[in-house]
Amino acid sequence: MERIDDLERDNLKIIQNPDKFCFGMDAVLLTGFAAVKPGETMVDIGTGNGVIPILMTSKGEGIMHYGLEIQEDMAEMAERSVKLNHLEEKVKIICCDVRESSDVIKNHSIDVVTCNPPYMNDEHGLKNDNRSLAIARHEITMTLDDAIREGCRMLRSGGRYYMVHRPHRLVDILETMRKYRLEPKRMRMVYPFADKEANMVLIEAFKDGKPFLKIEKPLIVYKGRDEYTDEVKKLYYE
Amino acid sequence: MERIDDLERDNLKIIQNPDKFCFGMDAVLLTGFAAVKPGETMVDIGTGNGVIPILMTSKGEGIMHYGLEIQEDMAEMAERSVKLNHLEEKVKIICCDVRESSDVIKNHSIDVVTCNPPYMNDEHGLKNDNRSLAIARHEITMTLDDAIREGCRMLRSGGRYYMVHRPHRLVDILETMRKYRLEPKRMRMVYPFADKEANMVLIEAFKDGKPFLKIEKPLIVYKGRDEYTDEVKKLYYE
Repeated sequence: MERIDDLERDNLKIIQNPDKFCFGMDAVLLTGFAAVKPGETMVDIGTGNGVIPILMTSKGEGIMHYGLEIQEDMAEMAERSVKLNHLEEKVKIICCDVRESSDVIKNHSIDVVTCNPPYMNDEHGLKNDNRSLAIARHEITMTLDDAIREGCRMLRSGGRYYMVHRPHRLVDILETMRKYRLEPKRMRMVYPFADKEANMVLIEAFKDGKPFLKIEKPLIVYKGRDEYTDEVKKLYYE
Repeated sequence: MERIDDLERDNLKIIQNPDKFCFGMDAVLLTGFAAVKPGETMVDIGTGNGVIPILMTSKGEGIMHYGLEIQEDMAEMAERSVKLNHLEEKVKIICCDVRESSDVIKNHSIDVVTCNPPYMNDEHGLKNDNRSLAIARHEITMTLDDAIREGCRMLRSGGRYYMVHRPHRLVDILETMRKYRLEPKRMRMVYPFADKEANMVLIEAFKDGKPFLKIEKPLIVYKGRDEYTDEVKKLYYE
């Protein structure tokens, strides 16, 4: 059933439906990691309920934030969240297949791409019977290669691609980025606790960039059983 | 000038010469990260003064540890450290160019390869006027591709390759490993302090392995200004 959640940031709200898709911490961490400068345009690939472009209107200083979503009902829900927040001038939801997006987003026309793609490919994890949840989690309508290739196609030279993903696919991600002239320049590992293995990775890549990767300080999520670290609290509530 | 240092482990000693090469923390962290099982044979590529094979006799359970070193004076110094520790039955230093090592180490004959390669390629860092130090730090006699290609050549299918390197080359490393059928399976980021960017990365790759990378808990080196964390203390002194 649909509900309206408070994003706890600039009074932004989001419409969600647990039967279809709810945003997770990965989306929040990605918006904290990504940077959109004044006047830039951004595209979020596979936007779901639009949480990333909506949050980026407040975290970045972009002029326009596109959200591409293949599922009609999801795109329509995202559209309603845009209206609910009166963000029609800053966020446009486009219902399309990213693999056929060249008509709606021209080549080399975008400064920033963000993507929180489905994490599982055919080799990993059980597919959800629920079609919406399965599309969000598994590479059914969009593979990693699709997400990177199409994002790179949209980006101007020097433009930035921000991705959040699971560590187990990191080698695939870095290799695929290079294949499409995206050079990974900055990475941050996300560890649930200071003594646990990483469960997310944040990557910034520059189109046509020179090779030189920086791995930023570790991002630790929890300090106690149910308590966020100060850095994560800030990401959520400041 | 030469000196003999205590490795603070099983009474092992090492001959060093600061004018030529002294081992660093990277070598110690690599020996803590690498695993050599009972009966296995290991090759250390670019062994310098032999610190890695010598330490691995105590940290692992290998039957034979080869150290390949291109510089004659360095190989001779490593050889003397082997004798000093009475390890002639477990460590063999071979003076050769790794690019021409197929006569001394046969294809697919080795279980484990370790490598602490020169970190700098032509694009980064000033070259040292001192030839020995320059060879240890810059890709003069051995490129990253050489180190990975030749190590993989030696390894049996399922064998493991352990490397320590700087984060800025990580994409090159992972890409080159895949090029030679080495699949990165386990990685650990080394951060000097909990709130600083990583300055080393440890990688374990399996020859002919299936893709699935695990990023282990962060390794933090210092907890105070001059105090190691407990984990690093253990690596050095236990």
